[in-house]
Amino acid sequence: MPPVIPIDDPDDPRIAAYRNVRERDLVGREGLFIAEGEVVLRILLQHSRHRPLSLLLAENRVAALAPLTTGLPDEVPVYAAGRAVLDAIVGFPLHRGILALGRRAAEPGAGGLLATLPPRALVAALFGIGNHDNVGGIFRNAAAFGADAVLLDRGCCDPLYRKAIRVSVGAALTVPFAWFDPSEDPLELLARHGFEALALSPRGGTALADVARADRAAVLLGSEGPGLPDALLERARSVRIPMAPGFDSLNVATTSGIVLHHLAQG
Amino acid sequence: MPPVIPIDDPDDPRIAAYRNVRERDLVGREGLFIAEGEVVLRILLQHSRHRPLSLLLAENRVAALAPLTTGLPDEVPVYAAGRAVLDAIVGFPLHRGILALGRRAAEPGAGGLLATLPPRALVAALFGIGNHDNVGGIFRNAAAFGADAVLLDRGCCDPLYRKAIRVSVGAALTVPFAWFDPSEDPLELLARHGFEALALSPRGGTALADVARADRAAVLLGSEGPGLPDALLERARSVRIPMAPGFDSLNVATTSGIVLHHLAQG
Repeated sequence: MPPVIPIDDPDDPRIAAYRNVRERDLVGREGLFIAEGEVVLRILLQHSRHRPLSLLLAENRVAALAPLTTGLPDEVPVYAAGRAVLDAIVGFPLHRGILALGRRAAEPGAGGLLATLPPRALVAALFGIGNHDNVGGIFRNAAAFGADAVLLDRGCCDPLYRKAIRVSVGAALTVPFAWFDPSEDPLELLARHGFEALALSPRGGTALADVARADRAAVLLGSEGPGLPDALLERARSVRIPMAPGFDSLNVATTSGIVLHHLAQG
Repeated sequence: MPPVIPIDDPDDPRIAAYRNVRERDLVGREGLFIAEGEVVLRILLQHSRHRPLSLLLAENRVAALAPLTTGLPDEVPVYAAGRAVLDAIVGFPLHRGILALGRRAAEPGAGGLLATLPPRALVAALFGIGNHDNVGGIFRNAAAFGADAVLLDRGCCDPLYRKAIRVSVGAALTVPFAWFDPSEDPLELLARHGFEALALSPRGGTALADVARADRAAVLLGSEGPGLPDALLERARSVRIPMAPGFDSLNVATTSGIVLHHLAQG
């Protein structure tokens, strides 16, 4: 393990990537991302598809995290700061006291990722889901039920947004994901790779319990409210989760859990 | 509809119950609660088990909400304030511009509520779930899958906490709920009323897909992390949701959705 490097000046250039975390969340980090909290840090260091670049810890967390940081190579520096300096760096009170900077893995595109999957595979395909809690929750469920990948259209939020990683309990760092190219037809792409597309909608034609799992299955999910675009719904097999009369509203992350659980059994 | 009553002074005693909304969320409101947003307001006025006492709206929302407020009796006053006054009353920028004050329905206690349920009934019983998002999400799923009631122990947060109502999309106002008396044994109470208790745990003995629905079924859920107390788990039929190897963590609201969906089909 490299020696822990003390940081006394919030403007120290070595920790520049951690400055004003929230503001940078909004503008993006060009190939980098910030992860926070112990559970997520553990996954970033031990199981992630993405590469840790450095850690920034509250001084009082350093000792307890030593078992985790001891194995780190020298090129992943561990910075530590007192609470006041830490809060001044990130721009808000960082209760957890644990941040890490990571570099994204190369992103193969949806077609490239589908081409790497095994003959029996389960994917979630997300359209217009901009809410970080929901995207994080869907990744958590994808990991729980062994989904092979998550595909996203450009209307979705970044799974490596800090809050999405946290809500996913780190699954956003482990489940492979890729973006649909806006110029390609998602249904055509899925069909070309032999995936049956199941489009979830409160008015879907088949009840989920009656869906037999195809070897390659893709679960299409839209945002709460508008749902999936009609242009997709009309061309895919539409599936509904039956609900009580007068109620047609499930959280989209909960929906993903119900559907992936069903398909993972099948 | 009563005439809309303009409020120009944040200290006007008529809107005292709306002052410093967040601080009062923390201390409780002795039989009252605050609901916010249009979807929740609609449910409070049209389908709630609880009674609306008054509304406080941003001036610029009044006209659009007229179809909803027109039928209100005179004893439910509608107050309206400009943005600056409204924000000064509630203590933060109230983007939605819609609040309502309600009075809780009488609370029969868990045994009293169970006694009113039909011969075939489904309930969720929550233990130590203090997170408002999770309690709200569980109520949303309870409504979606037609659960008859939610029971809570004293370690759970109040379902009529403002944020829990919002996350439940108003279901916290419609699904009957009651608290376990700390002096009573929840399992004995459920058994006395003929409910099979299904205790959810990652290490549960029966896979969910193999659970046949009893006429009266109770789904026992604990908080994320500690889960259900051993004393409950050991005495109930334990049920697991099978997950991918190395992953044993589902969000508890998602868990409730998966289990209630399964039992609602059965």
